[in-house]
Amino acid sequence: MQNMDADIKIESGVVVTCNAVGDILDKGCVVIKQGRIADIGTMEAMNSWTAKETIDATGCVVMPGLVNAHTHLPMSLFRGLADDIHLMTWLNDYIFPAEAIHITPETVRIGALLSCAELLLSGTTTCCDGYFYEDSVAEAIFETGIRAIAGQGVIDYPAPGVSDPSKNIAAAISFVEKWAGRNSLITPSIFCHSPYTCSRETLIRSRNEAAYRGVLFQIHVAETKSEYDQIVKENGVSPVAYLDIINVLRPGTLLVHAVWMDEEDRKRIADRGVSVVHNPESNMKLASGIAPIPELIEQGVTVGLGTDGSASNNNLDLFEEMDVAAKLHKVSRMDPTILDAETVLNMATAHGADAIGLGKVVGSLEEGKQADLIVIDMQKPHLVPMYHPISHIVYAAKGSDVRDVMVNGKVLVKDGRLLTIDLEKLFERVAEVGRLIKK
Amino acid sequence: MQNMDADIKIESGVVVTCNAVGDILDKGCVVIKQGRIADIGTMEAMNSWTAKETIDATGCVVMPGLVNAHTHLPMSLFRGLADDIHLMTWLNDYIFPAEAIHITPETVRIGALLSCAELLLSGTTTCCDGYFYEDSVAEAIFETGIRAIAGQGVIDYPAPGVSDPSKNIAAAISFVEKWAGRNSLITPSIFCHSPYTCSRETLIRSRNEAAYRGVLFQIHVAETKSEYDQIVKENGVSPVAYLDIINVLRPGTLLVHAVWMDEEDRKRIADRGVSVVHNPESNMKLASGIAPIPELIEQGVTVGLGTDGSASNNNLDLFEEMDVAAKLHKVSRMDPTILDAETVLNMATAHGADAIGLGKVVGSLEEGKQADLIVIDMQKPHLVPMYHPISHIVYAAKGSDVRDVMVNGKVLVKDGRLLTIDLEKLFERVAEVGRLIKK
Repeated sequence: MQNMDADIKIESGVVVTCNAVGDILDKGCVVIKQGRIADIGTMEAMNSWTAKETIDATGCVVMPGLVNAHTHLPMSLFRGLADDIHLMTWLNDYIFPAEAIHITPETVRIGALLSCAELLLSGTTTCCDGYFYEDSVAEAIFETGIRAIAGQGVIDYPAPGVSDPSKNIAAAISFVEKWAGRNSLITPSIFCHSPYTCSRETLIRSRNEAAYRGVLFQIHVAETKSEYDQIVKENGVSPVAYLDIINVLRPGTLLVHAVWMDEEDRKRIADRGVSVVHNPESNMKLASGIAPIPELIEQGVTVGLGTDGSASNNNLDLFEEMDVAAKLHKVSRMDPTILDAETVLNMATAHGADAIGLGKVVGSLEEGKQADLIVIDMQKPHLVPMYHPISHIVYAAKGSDVRDVMVNGKVLVKDGRLLTIDLEKLFERVAEVGRLIKK
Repeated sequence: MQNMDADIKIESGVVVTCNAVGDILDKGCVVIKQGRIADIGTMEAMNSWTAKETIDATGCVVMPGLVNAHTHLPMSLFRGLADDIHLMTWLNDYIFPAEAIHITPETVRIGALLSCAELLLSGTTTCCDGYFYEDSVAEAIFETGIRAIAGQGVIDYPAPGVSDPSKNIAAAISFVEKWAGRNSLITPSIFCHSPYTCSRETLIRSRNEAAYRGVLFQIHVAETKSEYDQIVKENGVSPVAYLDIINVLRPGTLLVHAVWMDEEDRKRIADRGVSVVHNPESNMKLASGIAPIPELIEQGVTVGLGTDGSASNNNLDLFEEMDVAAKLHKVSRMDPTILDAETVLNMATAHGADAIGLGKVVGSLEEGKQADLIVIDMQKPHLVPMYHPISHIVYAAKGSDVRDVMVNGKVLVKDGRLLTIDLEKLFERVAEVGRLIKK
């Protein structure tokens, strides 16, 4: 038998692959070479591999890093600024004014660093972001080592960094051109805010620019009843139908929220091959409504899971989001068999990666994919005994149970500590910004 | 100024008192003497106290330990055994058979130890339990040092330890007589399973025995639609009305779940002065329904928060339960102002303590109450900056952020480590039991 040299072997954990057939290896081994998964199998089958470093995962679950398919990283600075109020009050009286005064390239960088730290420490290795000053978000991505889709925002209002809305699309294009193909950690995107904050022309132009450049087009849609009513009033059709009529619904479009929809809307989404990201905790907290996720999945739509920004959640822990997603739909349909644990886990891993266009790169533990994975310590009072690993991952574990985190084969979190940035120093800067915002 | 000697001073934290007016001290101090809170106030106001030991809570929140008003401690052994199925399938095909084979005094002790460890490590200092072999639960309470209401079960079926159901009430009475007034950590109670598993005679007799002995009477009621239909069919009235007619609804009764109710039922509950415990995650996971909690609170009913057993949750983290409770009702009513963070925090502290009859002893940080409190480390990426401590407690923090835990002035958890029992040894025993159950 040939002696092959790998960089890292992760040994003896319960390996939950999240591959297409849901393989779980009771005592498995993941072999990593040059940032990729070189091989995966039972401990015995991986015997021929030698490695420079081994990580003992006895008593742990090894699984793909989670994929947070929708967030606004810099908004961690506004977490808890205002809660328990209506969405429009929250946006107009708190969030938009705070953004107007306090959002600068530097605060975007600080807020994004904070969120990337939170994501990595709670087991998320890929996120899909949409905000402004996205170059500063990119800095935070590189500093922390997380993988991200980053979308520069387009909105027909003055936005942070863009006082003239007519220049928003140009700014988004220049962001995409700057980052396309430049670094494996960052994949640029265009983030168009919504059909109620962008003109028809803006929607069409920005969608076409994204298509021309082959990048993901993210858009909030049908989040609230009031948005639905407004679009129906102005255009005579639902938000989803409106986007379809102006040809925004194409493969490569990611619909965020998608709460207020009828059967015809769902059919349009399925027929056009667009993806959806579900953000149950934000939709619950803002009382937006419950998206018809089981129906979308039934119709073959690729659905990912997101936290939304931490100001409307109020954290970025995707373990919590999985748990809530599974439970919310059960009680709302009065059917405990709906959205079972495995379906939800796939939303937060392989299907989430598919939804944001990274399904060939990450989202499952398979030979050839990038080595983005996490090791969860299951030796905790709330995680023993373990009869079914997927049940524990979805219903019992939390982000704080994540012990090690790896992106591109590089260890970013070890024994629950983030290796890439100095948190104490970051917290000092965060406290300064927080004091200004609180005033 | 007099120099007074205390045992412990907890200094410089943000003190969230959960007292009747919701006082929060930005830089507060809690003084502990002989297991009680001897004094509480600003750092300056507490200057005259000296103490043998000081705990620095800079950058932390200090608050009352959480009160989990409904759980079944030993059921941690069945967590994740079966999920995503109907309640009756879950009970009849998985839980009841597993209980029949595997529940013994020793496994009850092991399962309860595991749950007490989980509760303490996630910031719960008081729980209200109902199960069988409750003497073994009491052992776990003493070993770990948690405070508990413990109710020996009454059910008209053969139950663990009681093959002849007619002896269930006698067993419950003897449990109450054994533990009443014996130790401040344990307060005995009678736990009557439900109106659909107990005869009218059993309900009346066990309620009277509880009243005669002045102990809490816990009962599951109106959990599912099928229970509701069955009671209506058999008795011509709703489950709550049925309990009222047979005089079970009296002060000192704790109604668990209380999901399926109409306006008249709610009025009966309010008029009779009985308390309710809300278990949103279990009700969601089993698709039981959504209890009318905002209405009950509006009508002046004392409502606590519980996790239910960890087999239907699937953890005992009351921080998660607070978060989900606040969000579930917002989305189900389409009103983001419902069940605000402070209301939910009170359910998990002062009101929960009131609901289980311990409101004069614990549930808030006030002079004279027992020193049951927790210190939460807020220097985490998901908890800075902090604009409003209650927002972070309910919407952003989790059990794993709890640094120190104290019951009766005794430190049980320090720097996230449980001091009272050896977890590694416990996990070995748990693994043995788990292997038998898995077979």
